[in-house]
Amino acid sequence: MTTQHPGLVNVFDRPRDHQIKRDAVLRAAANMFNKRGYAATSLDEIAAQFNITKTSLYYYVGSKPVLLQKCYEVTLDYCDHAMEQVRGQENSGLEKIVNYLRMIILEAPNRGPLAVVNEFHCLPDEARDEIHRRARKLDENLLALIEEGIADGSVAPVPTKIAELLLMGALNWIWRWYEPDGPATSEEIADCFVSLFIDGLRVGAEAR
Amino acid sequence: MTTQHPGLVNVFDRPRDHQIKRDAVLRAAANMFNKRGYAATSLDEIAAQFNITKTSLYYYVGSKPVLLQKCYEVTLDYCDHAMEQVRGQENSGLEKIVNYLRMIILEAPNRGPLAVVNEFHCLPDEARDEIHRRARKLDENLLALIEEGIADGSVAPVPTKIAELLLMGALNWIWRWYEPDGPATSEEIADCFVSLFIDGLRVGAEAR
Repeated sequence: MTTQHPGLVNVFDRPRDHQIKRDAVLRAAANMFNKRGYAATSLDEIAAQFNITKTSLYYYVGSKPVLLQKCYEVTLDYCDHAMEQVRGQENSGLEKIVNYLRMIILEAPNRGPLAVVNEFHCLPDEARDEIHRRARKLDENLLALIEEGIADGSVAPVPTKIAELLLMGALNWIWRWYEPDGPATSEEIADCFVSLFIDGLRVGAEAR
Repeated sequence: MTTQHPGLVNVFDRPRDHQIKRDAVLRAAANMFNKRGYAATSLDEIAAQFNITKTSLYYYVGSKPVLLQKCYEVTLDYCDHAMEQVRGQENSGLEKIVNYLRMIILEAPNRGPLAVVNEFHCLPDEARDEIHRRARKLDENLLALIEEGIADGSVAPVPTKIAELLLMGALNWIWRWYEPDGPATSEEIADCFVSLFIDGLRVGAEAR
């Protein structure tokens, strides 16, 4: 049985606004889905983290598929926001890619881990296509940044689709192992990500 | 309903050895688990790929949890083999890391995608601990190669655990999108992986 983390401040311990409680539940649920999978995580276990009943949990976030949907939506909303920010910058393609990935990693302690487990099929039927469409759109936008970098000379002529998928893999996998109270801070992870992976994208990398 | 790929040679179309049929089923199952998740994949759908009954499928691979276990074991056996090969080489730590990752990616068309979805909890109780232990041992061995590279001067002084997890993320995610008949060959993926990521590990990367 999962119980509340001893050091965690329980947002349900005193009256707070609905949104704060809802966000805390989404973070906890996304973390459990990422670490153990959607099917193996029960609403009872999520509720137990906050010492509330499953009925209370339902009041804040709805059914389990709807909870999953909201985890995806929070993630996609933030990624859309980050993408919009970097696309408006007067930077090279490479700098935009670095800034986009960094924004997402650095936001982890605030938003909690993203729901990136392979659980599209568990989404409510009426939400699945739209969430899938949004996720693909983000992939296309990152691909476009890589292409922009190649065009402006900041990115080496990599096979763009493979590079995009490899970068997204390294990024998405982070939520499997990242712990807000773990030994690695999001700043350390972002720095390591950039120093490990981005140098390979840089023009001239292929000639070294 | 998933049906057999029209271009696929069905190993069940004529008498063949048990091992060949078993391996083909494991590859198909691992591919479906990786792409859609374990819970969303039924034995009926796997059987349908070979035009056989669920009972025949059971004869070759056992129950669904045992099938998952075998997918993990095939994966771990090959990764252990690759790790043993590179550890015996007279190479720098960096070269060993490159060779290890390359061996795993290049083997994909032969062995099929690896079962890397987050499905430890769905394994049979009696197998879970051992498979988890073997997966952790591989992580430790890759970590040791990074440390060896730092010690021999071939790898930059990265935070080793974060670097290991990021590399494994990019690697593991490949099986979510890799298709044996897809547009990208395993050689192209391996080359892109090495040129993208390994240059960031190289000594001097941090000074650029």
